[in-house]
Amino acid sequence: MLEKKKGLDPLFEPESIAIVGASSKKGKVGNILLSNIVNSGYRGKVYPVNPKGGELYGKEIYESIEELPEGIDLGIIVIPAKYVKEAIQKLGEKGIQHTIVITSGFSEIGNTEEENLIVEEAGKHGMRILGPNVFGIYSSKVDLNATFGPSKVASGEIALISQSGALGIAMIGKTAMQYLGLSAIVSVGNKSDIDDMDLIDYFSDDDESKVIMIYMEGLQNGREFIEKVEEDIPPEKTVIVIKAGRSEKGATAVASHTGSLAGSDRVFSSAFKQAGILRADTINDAFSWSRAFSNTPLPKNDKVVVVTNGGGIGVLSADAAEKYGVELLDDQTFLKETFQESIPPFGSTKNPIDITGQAGKEEYENALRRAFESDEIGAVVGLYCETGTTDDDEVAKAIKEIHDEYGDEKTAVYTFTGGEEAYDCVQWLRKNKISAYTETDEVMSSLGALYKRKRYLERMEEMEEIEEPDIDVDGIKEVINGVVEEGRINLLEDEARTILDLAGIPMAKGKVVNTLEGAVEAAEEIGYPVVLKVVSEDIIHKSDAGGLALNLENEKEVVDAYQAIYSNCKNKYPDAHIRGISVADMLEGGEETIIGGTRDNSFGPMVMFGLGGVYVEILEDVVFRVAPVSKREARRMIGEINAFPVLVGARGQTRKDLDALADIIYRMSFLMDEVDEISEIDLNPIKAFDQGKGARSVDVAVSIKKR
Amino acid sequence: MLEKKKGLDPLFEPESIAIVGASSKKGKVGNILLSNIVNSGYRGKVYPVNPKGGELYGKEIYESIEELPEGIDLGIIVIPAKYVKEAIQKLGEKGIQHTIVITSGFSEIGNTEEENLIVEEAGKHGMRILGPNVFGIYSSKVDLNATFGPSKVASGEIALISQSGALGIAMIGKTAMQYLGLSAIVSVGNKSDIDDMDLIDYFSDDDESKVIMIYMEGLQNGREFIEKVEEDIPPEKTVIVIKAGRSEKGATAVASHTGSLAGSDRVFSSAFKQAGILRADTINDAFSWSRAFSNTPLPKNDKVVVVTNGGGIGVLSADAAEKYGVELLDDQTFLKETFQESIPPFGSTKNPIDITGQAGKEEYENALRRAFESDEIGAVVGLYCETGTTDDDEVAKAIKEIHDEYGDEKTAVYTFTGGEEAYDCVQWLRKNKISAYTETDEVMSSLGALYKRKRYLERMEEMEEIEEPDIDVDGIKEVINGVVEEGRINLLEDEARTILDLAGIPMAKGKVVNTLEGAVEAAEEIGYPVVLKVVSEDIIHKSDAGGLALNLENEKEVVDAYQAIYSNCKNKYPDAHIRGISVADMLEGGEETIIGGTRDNSFGPMVMFGLGGVYVEILEDVVFRVAPVSKREARRMIGEINAFPVLVGARGQTRKDLDALADIIYRMSFLMDEVDEISEIDLNPIKAFDQGKGARSVDVAVSIKKR
Repeated sequence: MLEKKKGLDPLFEPESIAIVGASSKKGKVGNILLSNIVNSGYRGKVYPVNPKGGELYGKEIYESIEELPEGIDLGIIVIPAKYVKEAIQKLGEKGIQHTIVITSGFSEIGNTEEENLIVEEAGKHGMRILGPNVFGIYSSKVDLNATFGPSKVASGEIALISQSGALGIAMIGKTAMQYLGLSAIVSVGNKSDIDDMDLIDYFSDDDESKVIMIYMEGLQNGREFIEKVEEDIPPEKTVIVIKAGRSEKGATAVASHTGSLAGSDRVFSSAFKQAGILRADTINDAFSWSRAFSNTPLPKNDKVVVVTNGGGIGVLSADAAEKYGVELLDDQTFLKETFQESIPPFGSTKNPIDITGQAGKEEYENALRRAFESDEIGAVVGLYCETGTTDDDEVAKAIKEIHDEYGDEKTAVYTFTGGEEAYDCVQWLRKNKISAYTETDEVMSSLGALYKRKRYLERMEEMEEIEEPDIDVDGIKEVINGVVEEGRINLLEDEARTILDLAGIPMAKGKVVNTLEGAVEAAEEIGYPVVLKVVSEDIIHKSDAGGLALNLENEKEVVDAYQAIYSNCKNKYPDAHIRGISVADMLEGGEETIIGGTRDNSFGPMVMFGLGGVYVEILEDVVFRVAPVSKREARRMIGEINAFPVLVGARGQTRKDLDALADIIYRMSFLMDEVDEISEIDLNPIKAFDQGKGARSVDVAVSIKKR
Repeated sequence: MLEKKKGLDPLFEPESIAIVGASSKKGKVGNILLSNIVNSGYRGKVYPVNPKGGELYGKEIYESIEELPEGIDLGIIVIPAKYVKEAIQKLGEKGIQHTIVITSGFSEIGNTEEENLIVEEAGKHGMRILGPNVFGIYSSKVDLNATFGPSKVASGEIALISQSGALGIAMIGKTAMQYLGLSAIVSVGNKSDIDDMDLIDYFSDDDESKVIMIYMEGLQNGREFIEKVEEDIPPEKTVIVIKAGRSEKGATAVASHTGSLAGSDRVFSSAFKQAGILRADTINDAFSWSRAFSNTPLPKNDKVVVVTNGGGIGVLSADAAEKYGVELLDDQTFLKETFQESIPPFGSTKNPIDITGQAGKEEYENALRRAFESDEIGAVVGLYCETGTTDDDEVAKAIKEIHDEYGDEKTAVYTFTGGEEAYDCVQWLRKNKISAYTETDEVMSSLGALYKRKRYLERMEEMEEIEEPDIDVDGIKEVINGVVEEGRINLLEDEARTILDLAGIPMAKGKVVNTLEGAVEAAEEIGYPVVLKVVSEDIIHKSDAGGLALNLENEKEVVDAYQAIYSNCKNKYPDAHIRGISVADMLEGGEETIIGGTRDNSFGPMVMFGLGGVYVEILEDVVFRVAPVSKREARRMIGEINAFPVLVGARGQTRKDLDALADIIYRMSFLMDEVDEISEIDLNPIKAFDQGKGARSVDVAVSIKKR
């Protein structure tokens, strides 16, 4: 027996494979599979197994697993479900440590019991299982196409993981047709053992894979996933996810604003962004971006130059640049100096550089060379628009020659717009590992993706270790235990106040009192004007019940309000348990904001920020992060809302205390992260005062998990 | 001489063509052109002209124009610029009434004089000119490819107009490669005579053209263009425009909010929407949509059913449906009844209908037949995801058979996801005039475009004749003449008040006074609280100058404020011409909105609506229309802002008087339309009160055109 390989190496780099269920019958999975393995140029040993024996595709067929030699790296099973367990046992006995179970008919149709038995059997032999219910794998390292999909696969640097087997197969064909080079393709099927985490583990270390592209429908352990990506994926690799199921509505009923705004899709987008994962809306986008990441380096600076032979596509590319956050170099003097000599009469050195419809090989070569040689230029976009007279091939050749000359020094992407000839050029460039596209939109979308990744990496470089705030977790848990003992899930005002206090989050001054004298005393202590509000778990809509009085300016008003609140509430809710009346500072001025915490099924604790009122309720102008976050990240969240200018003095207003807001977000994120018992918190509103004057929460609602 | 044909018929349906400058030299425009004409299968007579004579592509070459017979329909000129005028003259003398001047080197390089001479010469003969500086035309009616672009063009029902010659040529190739069938291709070049308007005229009457697709970079006479589209384009035709130059910033300096928000791009989008023109961001979108419009009817109802063999693409299509405003049928009982029998075990009748990876021809045919036969279903989306085992061709055949059987009764669009085989199926379906796509996103984007058009037509059906409001235009012009005489461009408050009054737009009660007694009298008349404000064209920032006092509650406060304003302003602006002080109702409560009027260079008078303050200034949550608009359209504008829920009682507020707001928008639109002298008006804010309580403008700024 060979030395046992670590992790998933034998799955992607097997030296020998046994195919249990290889079949001579055309069209059967066991036949296509063997044919693909043999025809893909796999150089290892292949051992087909079938009771009928004989020979197939030049390989001797073994009549049983028992007859196989020892020391085979990988087993692949394509026999009916009911025979799988026995096959696993026999493969295990032969010392096989990795097996792909292609066979379906297990947990995906409710047959979970049989699936568990298989996993148990594999466990006995220390064997790892991919599947069941998968299409196999492709691995460029050993030229292995062990799938029952298309036989032709273009090899390259993109590892493709699909949560859908069907779509995975279709994508094999699609990538091959577009010469999108793959290092591996794998579907996770029922994930009885090997799952997305294991694959991220493997590909993060795999030298052949520069891009990890995932088609994802759901993510049970989202938090673990993004933590793995953050920790394991090195800067030179990129994860691109097509997350399907955007329109899926969050199923859990939620009580808070924060909770109701945290639709699963919004949370996915936030979490992915936080981990530097690029989210693609469509397969086409994911393909376009993957091509750019696998063929061209990240830009060295933000300035982009577009070289074009047509004004029309030039204008379209400038539109697309704006759409995708790509910045065109605008220094007219520099552009003129750099490109003047290389453009024909009636051309333009304005960016896009218009080398005119007359431009052929020489003009493209000239202009591109200048762009490649200038350190001022971070990325080059070459556009070619088919003319009646220029030879498309010559332009493609010019591009290839430039790339041969300069290697991978400069970020460069290309579009050929036109018919068959233009398309052939795009394909030829693709075969030559140059990022070429058929649409102007695609080229800018891809460049935009490169810049997104670049900016993420720059942010990461400046990231400090997250310092923990001083939060009295034990004290907070004590408060919560009290609530639990009373069988409640919503905290009363004084309880919530205590928790915020222990978390270091400032609130409007206030106190819960039980006597008229107490109320007046509290008001004097706090300072007028004050707010009075009934404290009772039985009265939810306090304002409707007459349980709220605002803007009380003196003792008399406090006395009147105290009495009125008591009698209103007693009248309207005779059975309500009134625990007292809260007296609080009527904070005047300031901008209303909202900071909340919630707990996502997949990503765990999240923190939210937005402006209050209409902004959050109607415009949903909010931003989420997976908790905890650093103060710097909290500050960045504030800047991401659309209405941000309101907070920095737009419309003649004053600049608000953003540091104070960031501190609350930061503390809120740790509170959610460290106190599991809390399910949701809304601080709504939090008044943000002028710079240096702080921010205070006016109202707080905390709910804890049901036991 | 033949009877003279009307309009552009002889351009697109010539019975005979003279090509001045036909050349035997390969690669020359005059050679490619003749070769394309002869090889495209054109059935009319072809008369090449070249002094060298001889024969070319089986056609006798005439040595001079003089030798040509009389009665030729169309001339095409491809000789150098300096000889063009003479050729026009000679063609004119031969009675040719339509000529395409392909030759470049005229106004596009500054040679406007020569271009004018040509037009003048053509005028002498009553000849119409397309060009100069065009690539020629293609017309499917007579199988004529008179371009120097690619020789192969797919014929169909899309008329393609390009403002860019280069991109036009590239699009010929692109459409051919994708089997996107064209009825005509034409570029307008320098538009010395025939322009976009003429072409819209022609194609709106042309039976062969169902879709008019335009690549547009600018539009000088936007208003005329959209009026033509609104009036001439029949419901069964659709105009799709790729408007490039989105990122182009409006160049004119503007003084009002309305003006500054009316960036040319926003105005384009509004105007296009108003005329039922579909605006595409990319060539790809325009192609996808055009395909759907030319191959499939508009949906009869809003409910869409998706039939798929793969869960993954099903989920992606549901996501895309939501993105593009496509509604999936959700009646589970109906779905079960309709599809239960046609789906295999482990399939799903939930929409998307999952007929599973096992599905072949029969399953697709079954499911599609049921969908086609149900009147409850407005549109069908068929998705196919390549599997390892199904034959793609069979699925394509199933689709074709269903279409053969049901004709064009039902809206239906398809996607095949996969490799070469899937792509070949898409292409084969396209050749058979079925709307097939390679991307799930494209298919839903196209269906979304069909629905947009359907909804527009429905709105048009219910459109009433726009009734004119009672606006005293003469009175308003009189006020403006007074302002002009004083050499001002900004109206004073009392002037602006008078204009609003004459236009029937309600303002807060108010009056400009010149004495302390007058102020007090006015305040008593209006009712407290009131606002006092200085009236002076020399004091712009009235608040900063101490020229504004709010919320004055009694006579004493009015007296104090009056004196303070006078002394503040005299101190700060000793030379200012103070015309008086306005006393106005301090309108309390109500929601702040803004209604404005501006004048766009291309589209003329526009009207704008938005919520006030942050909404308009930071979030730019505003909506525009080309003026005038009906009350119903005005009401629709109100509903289009993002913050609309604020106006109908979101957040426990009351519903505001939307009819009153709509009436102001409607009157504003007529005011802008009928009084040319006004360049901009801002009513900011307008307070909208509770339903039935009306709306009133608090502040108004009017500026008139400079003379």
